[in-house]
Amino acid sequence: MAVPPLRFAAIGLDHRHIYHQVGRLLDLGCTCTGFWTEGEPQPLGGFLERFPDLSRADDPARLLEDLDVDLIVTAAIPDERAGVAVRAMRNGKDVMTDKPGVTTPEQLAEVKRVQTETGRIWSVDFSERFEVRAMTRAAELVEAGAIGEVVHLTGFGPHRLNRPLRPPWFFDPARTGGILCDLASHQIDQFLYLTGAEDAEIAASTVANRANPDDLELEDYGEVLLRTERATGFFRVDWYTPDGLSTWGDGRLTVLGTEGFIEVRKYVDIAGASGTDHLFLVDKAGTRRVDCRDAPLPYYEALVRDVRERSETAMSQGHCFNVMELALRAQARARRLP
Amino acid sequence: MAVPPLRFAAIGLDHRHIYHQVGRLLDLGCTCTGFWTEGEPQPLGGFLERFPDLSRADDPARLLEDLDVDLIVTAAIPDERAGVAVRAMRNGKDVMTDKPGVTTPEQLAEVKRVQTETGRIWSVDFSERFEVRAMTRAAELVEAGAIGEVVHLTGFGPHRLNRPLRPPWFFDPARTGGILCDLASHQIDQFLYLTGAEDAEIAASTVANRANPDDLELEDYGEVLLRTERATGFFRVDWYTPDGLSTWGDGRLTVLGTEGFIEVRKYVDIAGASGTDHLFLVDKAGTRRVDCRDAPLPYYEALVRDVRERSETAMSQGHCFNVMELALRAQARARRLP
Repeated sequence: MAVPPLRFAAIGLDHRHIYHQVGRLLDLGCTCTGFWTEGEPQPLGGFLERFPDLSRADDPARLLEDLDVDLIVTAAIPDERAGVAVRAMRNGKDVMTDKPGVTTPEQLAEVKRVQTETGRIWSVDFSERFEVRAMTRAAELVEAGAIGEVVHLTGFGPHRLNRPLRPPWFFDPARTGGILCDLASHQIDQFLYLTGAEDAEIAASTVANRANPDDLELEDYGEVLLRTERATGFFRVDWYTPDGLSTWGDGRLTVLGTEGFIEVRKYVDIAGASGTDHLFLVDKAGTRRVDCRDAPLPYYEALVRDVRERSETAMSQGHCFNVMELALRAQARARRLP
Repeated sequence: MAVPPLRFAAIGLDHRHIYHQVGRLLDLGCTCTGFWTEGEPQPLGGFLERFPDLSRADDPARLLEDLDVDLIVTAAIPDERAGVAVRAMRNGKDVMTDKPGVTTPEQLAEVKRVQTETGRIWSVDFSERFEVRAMTRAAELVEAGAIGEVVHLTGFGPHRLNRPLRPPWFFDPARTGGILCDLASHQIDQFLYLTGAEDAEIAASTVANRANPDDLELEDYGEVLLRTERATGFFRVDWYTPDGLSTWGDGRLTVLGTEGFIEVRKYVDIAGASGTDHLFLVDKAGTRRVDCRDAPLPYYEALVRDVRERSETAMSQGHCFNVMELALRAQARARRLP
């Protein structure tokens, strides 16, 4: 091979997103030096089943200080991810973190400072874009002008609560960052990406707990309205997915343009076609489903290239920071309904 | 017949909604005394084709002062509807007006004052609910608790511009009341109706002109975010429906509850099933289409009964006023994007 194989390690297996964070890197031929996690988090069993050959380190420092490790991936408890990232960057390693990546403005400031000082990559895996072929296609269509100028995005990010699988930290916004920081960061990423905006005004944001009165601190509903000079975006997220849905959430994105619109039904077409990645395009010429099966998912491969070549193709560092900045701002300013 | 037949007259044929306003009353056995309209508005030709037996009065006073007329229906130019309604009520007649019914707070105040003084009915025909069987069914499901408590509504009200059919007043917000007053009043009606709220806060509202730069005053996009203590509602309306859509607009309403959700695709199921009134219900038990063919459209029949029996069953007078109050407030406070 022209370039040496990338080596990575996983620190913190507290969220199941770690499965694809590790799995996709292995699929690309990267080598996993090992993993470390505190205790026995719920995803650990599935991780060991999926990756029986990976060895567990008895101290995270063994991986964070390993000179052969290029990249640290983490799906630790959300409020611990920034700490992992900072240690990793200070040890000369790039970082790919499960969202939200940070849970407070102070954490974001420190991650920014250390990223700037070290020149390392800090990449949040916005999986509701990076793992969805229909989102790649939607972005291609918008870029090609298929719907004219983008005026508005509406996004739904419903999730299944899955109470029996959830550890105590899940119910504590101090640890997750709150529902807008955690879940709406996906949607904010999509808004900035598809409108090409660097920043936006938070016109309004709201959180509530309506279905889980015994979990006093939990936010089970959140929404944010973003506004730039050229576009607006309304996004709602929740933990209400009913058991009768065949998947974890009916994630949707509608992109309204001056000359047409795109609707993406990411994970399910309710009472409709089977499978995932349902993209509908309505324009001057007609109304049709657009096939997304051959749309690529370039994030992981681009990130590996970026690590090797010190490039910035998977996602710009500024975009990644701006998304989390907006998510934290939406969270901090949210009106909490009684 | 136990009750004498209701007699009505039509004043102002400036919007094609007059077709169903008149047609449905005739279908119910009501008698149309005649119509009056200024000049030759675009809908007149279609009106004469549909209702060749109706006679045109040469003076609106002939109809407004006719002692045998019980009800005045109007689809005059929006800023003239309040004047028609006030004259009608002062002459002892009830009123059914095309939305928005009023275009300024001053008009609303006068309509309220005269309605209170005269005890007449002032009813705005919110056709995006009253003419949609799937909306009747959605309301039945919500009322029956099918999705738990309502947390949020998202509504899309896109419309086709149809430029060749539009008179000059269409492009002047001073005459239409603006896009939120005109189109979003439908959505606000649905929000208050389905949440049971009497009032709401305007958390944010926005208007823009993005696709029609030569029509300087036109608003071709609008959105409003409503918030009560128990629910929120985001609604967007526009004049962007592309020619490739088989109907005038892909009107949608999604009602998110704590135990499930309902999606209504009112007029078209894009690249899906044929026909109108597509209602999807996702709850604990499953994901399914709900048949709406036998759902009634009770508004017109109830209004006729209300006129005869001085009851208030088609829509409460307070609700009707509150919807227009909110629509005017959303319009007045809207941020206009450049």
